[in-house]
Amino acid sequence: MPDTTVPSPGAPLDISGWTCPAPLRDQPRVVMGHGGGGALSAELVQQIFAPAFGGELLAQLGDSAALSLGGARLAFSTDSFVVRPLFFPGGSIGDLAVNGTVNDLAMSGARAAYLSCGFILEEGVEMPVVAAVAEAMGAAARTAGVEVATGDTKVVEAGHGDGIYINTAGIGLIPDGVDLRPQRVAPGDVVLVSGPIGVHGVAIMSVREGLEFGVEIESDCAALGGLVETLLAVTPDLHVLRDPTRGGLAAALNEIATASGTGVVIQERAVPVPPTVANACAILGLDPMYVANEGKLVAFVPRDHADAVLDAMRAHPLGAGAAAIGEVVGDHPGMVVARTPLGGTRVVDLPMGEQLPRIC
Amino acid sequence: MPDTTVPSPGAPLDISGWTCPAPLRDQPRVVMGHGGGGALSAELVQQIFAPAFGGELLAQLGDSAALSLGGARLAFSTDSFVVRPLFFPGGSIGDLAVNGTVNDLAMSGARAAYLSCGFILEEGVEMPVVAAVAEAMGAAARTAGVEVATGDTKVVEAGHGDGIYINTAGIGLIPDGVDLRPQRVAPGDVVLVSGPIGVHGVAIMSVREGLEFGVEIESDCAALGGLVETLLAVTPDLHVLRDPTRGGLAAALNEIATASGTGVVIQERAVPVPPTVANACAILGLDPMYVANEGKLVAFVPRDHADAVLDAMRAHPLGAGAAAIGEVVGDHPGMVVARTPLGGTRVVDLPMGEQLPRIC
Repeated sequence: MPDTTVPSPGAPLDISGWTCPAPLRDQPRVVMGHGGGGALSAELVQQIFAPAFGGELLAQLGDSAALSLGGARLAFSTDSFVVRPLFFPGGSIGDLAVNGTVNDLAMSGARAAYLSCGFILEEGVEMPVVAAVAEAMGAAARTAGVEVATGDTKVVEAGHGDGIYINTAGIGLIPDGVDLRPQRVAPGDVVLVSGPIGVHGVAIMSVREGLEFGVEIESDCAALGGLVETLLAVTPDLHVLRDPTRGGLAAALNEIATASGTGVVIQERAVPVPPTVANACAILGLDPMYVANEGKLVAFVPRDHADAVLDAMRAHPLGAGAAAIGEVVGDHPGMVVARTPLGGTRVVDLPMGEQLPRIC
Repeated sequence: MPDTTVPSPGAPLDISGWTCPAPLRDQPRVVMGHGGGGALSAELVQQIFAPAFGGELLAQLGDSAALSLGGARLAFSTDSFVVRPLFFPGGSIGDLAVNGTVNDLAMSGARAAYLSCGFILEEGVEMPVVAAVAEAMGAAARTAGVEVATGDTKVVEAGHGDGIYINTAGIGLIPDGVDLRPQRVAPGDVVLVSGPIGVHGVAIMSVREGLEFGVEIESDCAALGGLVETLLAVTPDLHVLRDPTRGGLAAALNEIATASGTGVVIQERAVPVPPTVANACAILGLDPMYVANEGKLVAFVPRDHADAVLDAMRAHPLGAGAAAIGEVVGDHPGMVVARTPLGGTRVVDLPMGEQLPRIC
């Protein structure tokens, strides 16, 4: 049986030197960070989109919205994909476009049923490239067990757009008895991660111009619907799931801490970071906690169920490298701190923007 | 009571000189017309996307997919919006992004319930522009009675993208007893249009660089959910509805003729074309039948119900200019022909691409 006991904090946490990032409202123009999934992204939604659109669902800022329609409990989510390059080791924009939305739905506990697909193509892009992306999407959809039900294609003039942008939206049924949301997180919950982090982001970086590391790192992009079903079969009483995409593990943990009003303590040495990712991050001056993933999830689980859920993760092909990395505390609500291997503590902030954009 | 009697064809239709447009497969690169909603768009879907994705729903090529989930009958649709300029007389990309998807759902008989919204923003776009677009979306959503439930924002580097692209996807409930699809169209059906055509497309053209007509023409962009509810209250036995967006009325009629395996005969003089649209089209060398609309619908209605449905259209604010424009025949299946005011006939082809791109 795995050990999900996380050492309790030792010395009182010293956060006296920490201040909240300055508010960035009144930013006169869109900057890259507004798409990064960090503080700037959250601000754009909270200050512009949520007030303009009204409604309660959007303001919850979840990976997907849980809603009721015709007596069915549905999860509904959307993502646009602007990754460069279109094909990278281990996947393509087509794989991401399917798995990204399937995974957002899975974080509500829903098995994705139907996807929509909106292409924005740039005039002049080679038709075989479009066909290869479409075939990758089709293969990913079959693997995930989801049907592309409806679509749309727009073409923009050469020089606008960027080859291929893809938006997918997805709907799926939320099983009875499943209620995954940050508000259910409570002190004592154990924080699990389903495997090594940072692999997808580093795989993209490795093929960007000028960034090569000698060792080819393949994206671990995958659809998590099956893994989530497996975990819910152990207990429907998971508290919250999140896929740590843009902004990485740090952003996912911060979002949950903020939305739940609890504190999160991570044991830095317990976070699974493959040596290739650690090396690449060292070269680039990045922190793996902030590197994007697609194919990993974070689960906040009541302590009583944590060992069984971690066992089930590790028995699943997509959770082989799972680990217990921390716990929820009543102290410092809204804040994520990491215990370093040397016994110190550091605050793990919500990133401002994104370390390297266009990775999804 | 309006007169929905359409004169029956006189002399036998001479289509001996007409040949099918040459197949355009093996097109090596994406051209603007692939996004135009005409023959090239259909070919892209039929030859590349539908085979790659598999599944039956996409292959039906409807404005939205009708599907069943958790016991609910749902309509699901998506559209991306790349219109230039972002603001135009009578509306904005925000209005289109809401109304376009709401209307696609309405064509299944569904009242839109929830929208997703994916922004692809270009680095450097002014934040007040983003805010104004979001506010237009919010206002349009409130008018249409739909909630923006989930969203996503990506940012691409300056010089890529084009200010703001928006994708929306939507879901809505299809009422019991409603079954709108081309396969239900039968000879004898009357073809109704809910008002003057070509207004939206000409409004966009009028503000494009170098195209000004002296008279300002305002887009008639509107959400059609309420109008469709009104028509279904007259009789749930409408056969098919379609909003003639890209490719105009000509594309909508051709799609229905092809999918239903029937012929459509239009009385050209019965098609409501406002003088301002006719004049602008004359200057530009365009046929109003091919100009995009957003806020109009075409209905194929059993003859017994046609007068009552036309009455109901005309009594609705969004159907004031409605007219009966033609009928369905058993001859020339898959083909749309127009009787000209001088008593001749002409084939109304599916357009290849789009007369002027980026109008939605």
